[in-house]
Amino acid sequence: MTAHIINIGDELLIGQVVNTNASWMAEELNKRNIKVTNISVISDGGDDIRTQLDSSLAEADVVLITGGLGPTKDDITKTVLCEYFGDTLVRHQQTYDNVKKFFERRGLPFTEINQAQALVPSRCRVLVNEVGTAPCMVFTIPNPTATFKQGASKKTAISLEEQTASSTEKIVISMPGVPFEMKWLMQNSVLPLLEERLGAEAIVHKTILTFGIGESFLADKIADWEDALPQHIKLAYLPEAGKVRLRLSAYGSDNAVLESEVAAQIKQLKEIIGEYIYGYDDETISSAIGKIVNRRCALLATAESCTGGLIARRITETPGSSAYFKGGIVAYSNEIKEQLLGVDHETLEQYGAVSEQTAKEMALGCLNVMGADYAIATTGIAGPTGGTDEKPLGLVYIAVASRDEVVCEKYIFRTTREQHQERTANQALFDLYKLLTKDC
Amino acid sequence: MTAHIINIGDELLIGQVVNTNASWMAEELNKRNIKVTNISVISDGGDDIRTQLDSSLAEADVVLITGGLGPTKDDITKTVLCEYFGDTLVRHQQTYDNVKKFFERRGLPFTEINQAQALVPSRCRVLVNEVGTAPCMVFTIPNPTATFKQGASKKTAISLEEQTASSTEKIVISMPGVPFEMKWLMQNSVLPLLEERLGAEAIVHKTILTFGIGESFLADKIADWEDALPQHIKLAYLPEAGKVRLRLSAYGSDNAVLESEVAAQIKQLKEIIGEYIYGYDDETISSAIGKIVNRRCALLATAESCTGGLIARRITETPGSSAYFKGGIVAYSNEIKEQLLGVDHETLEQYGAVSEQTAKEMALGCLNVMGADYAIATTGIAGPTGGTDEKPLGLVYIAVASRDEVVCEKYIFRTTREQHQERTANQALFDLYKLLTKDC
Repeated sequence: MTAHIINIGDELLIGQVVNTNASWMAEELNKRNIKVTNISVISDGGDDIRTQLDSSLAEADVVLITGGLGPTKDDITKTVLCEYFGDTLVRHQQTYDNVKKFFERRGLPFTEINQAQALVPSRCRVLVNEVGTAPCMVFTIPNPTATFKQGASKKTAISLEEQTASSTEKIVISMPGVPFEMKWLMQNSVLPLLEERLGAEAIVHKTILTFGIGESFLADKIADWEDALPQHIKLAYLPEAGKVRLRLSAYGSDNAVLESEVAAQIKQLKEIIGEYIYGYDDETISSAIGKIVNRRCALLATAESCTGGLIARRITETPGSSAYFKGGIVAYSNEIKEQLLGVDHETLEQYGAVSEQTAKEMALGCLNVMGADYAIATTGIAGPTGGTDEKPLGLVYIAVASRDEVVCEKYIFRTTREQHQERTANQALFDLYKLLTKDC
Repeated sequence: MTAHIINIGDELLIGQVVNTNASWMAEELNKRNIKVTNISVISDGGDDIRTQLDSSLAEADVVLITGGLGPTKDDITKTVLCEYFGDTLVRHQQTYDNVKKFFERRGLPFTEINQAQALVPSRCRVLVNEVGTAPCMVFTIPNPTATFKQGASKKTAISLEEQTASSTEKIVISMPGVPFEMKWLMQNSVLPLLEERLGAEAIVHKTILTFGIGESFLADKIADWEDALPQHIKLAYLPEAGKVRLRLSAYGSDNAVLESEVAAQIKQLKEIIGEYIYGYDDETISSAIGKIVNRRCALLATAESCTGGLIARRITETPGSSAYFKGGIVAYSNEIKEQLLGVDHETLEQYGAVSEQTAKEMALGCLNVMGADYAIATTGIAGPTGGTDEKPLGLVYIAVASRDEVVCEKYIFRTTREQHQERTANQALFDLYKLLTKDC
């Protein structure tokens, strides 16, 4: 089953609001083997809505629409849909009662403009919205022929009595754009309805998380494996700041078969690039670290200069991190490096704050001061100023330490300040991950 | 001028990635009075790209495409565009040199697959990407006639010599989908290019940054002022995590006139909501704080529990923050609160870690230990677990201190862990801002 998502709203087109509805909907649909082939953001304009409906109905089995269902004049989705499907508006009693109660509970007057929320096209099926005033409307229409492509402007929705849930029918579902109302309707009514209509197609996704190897080098390394993938298993590369996620998507008719096919592919992949893999699916590098440190009943601490707290922030994003994260010191000035972390004054004088020696002393001092078992330290030049010939912008030393050893690596990330901090934080977490797993 | 945005990428269609590129681009275009009439997310598939190009070129003056420009096999945007415009790929020397340097600087081999990044269609104008390897490509084509609507599959791009920047020409711009590369290209090349084509219209934007008042209360307070705005000055509300940005956009023919009109409106606005305003335009609350602290030749430090380093991270995002940010302590465990910040053991025993007393002692200890003039301290329950009847999830104490006083406020932010940390960090920075400015 394929779906198009249409998000109606000027606030999306001027960039005022990030379209989180679309990604949430796409993820939920995808989990249920419904393939989203297009997401379109359009204005609250009749022509735009009709044009998009024409093309979406020509291409997708299900069209999910959000937005434009409010009581004000700029909300026209319902009227446009009613005309588009050659229908007329009638009062939907359950919605009327629901909206009336909604206003009564809040002690607000039930005005004419709000009563209009209970009008719906006569041939649509209404899914009652218990968390707002705009009803969700489902239109069922015969599988359109090629005439859709020629932009015939009106289709007739099948009346409720005629509907057969035939697989040749297409459906259009209109929901409010308010995220929590949309989510409530999707979870309580729309997704169950779609699941009912679903055929046998199965999809399995698995994301392999890699770090420390660029996209193109990864592609080179796995080229033979990738070429040998069967037609029904697709690979996507999703790179970001030093990390590349590899997503395998398998399409077929039997979930269990696909699961085992994907598992077999991943087993092969691990033999080729196992050293770069730190996790799967929604795992983060800091949660992967957290799991290991926690399993060892150990404690982790950080000593950050150029990353300014970003690494501690990453670690503490993970729920439950208080069990293994002792704390961190953001040693932005040399004084703090000396006083709180115990970095030798001589070291700072002789080698400078941005040096391997300082990074190592920061990491060891951090273990000590914090009473931790593992530590991460960073010191570098994030920019935009402060570079020299000898120590250019982008230079950074990352030290990771256990009670047995301290390892320091030098990197140069020539990017913006923000990107430098992101890259350094990611690299530092990965360096610790390597230290934690090297003997496993 | 109208624009369509096309975001290519399967990761967007399965909801793995939220489409933040589209909203950022739409906002930047909107500021320049370029009206985005459609945002489409489509797959890395040739047919989808061609179909969308057909309809976007029929409707918009400018088509901005992101994604599908990586070196791997699933990235096909460049090949599809080349075919679509009836062109052939040639090496672009400047890009070749740039990509070569990119790999050399990193000590990485310049493989064939990466050399292919320097191939571009012969008739496109290349905007060199200095922060990545995929070049940005600009195709200029004659204003398409109705034939576009009939889905003619090939258009011929105008060669570089023939291009006249005529207003009847349409342009298609293809950029990488990696957000920081896209943003760099937009800011450095694409937006200036579009501004050039826009001609004489003058636009002035000014964003007023407010904190500590909800959108609807703000709207109530400024309703009369808003109603009295002249037709050519528009107001937009941009709310996020406790902050509301108000953007004024003035459209006309004379920049200087618009500037003074907008300044006069802001003067009036300050009289109504001055106490909530902390800055303008791209300023952040941490850069606003930085300016004040720096001007006073003072030093700032942080002591964070529940925010886990996020406040230090915010402060150090600002370039030059090393001049006034001494450092921070992420005191995630009680031991660290006692040992490094000098919080009294009795205080922790009697009132608990999440209490006004602890927050105040953290702030004062931070001033002391760090040798700073101003300090921020946070302690709270971010969740998802750890709440009690007495101290519910979402509870947080924020203390801000100068050498003269310490002020502590209690808040309850009932949201997700991530949102709680965001809200707390924003509120803490704003509380310090209030302390810094109260006698000004």
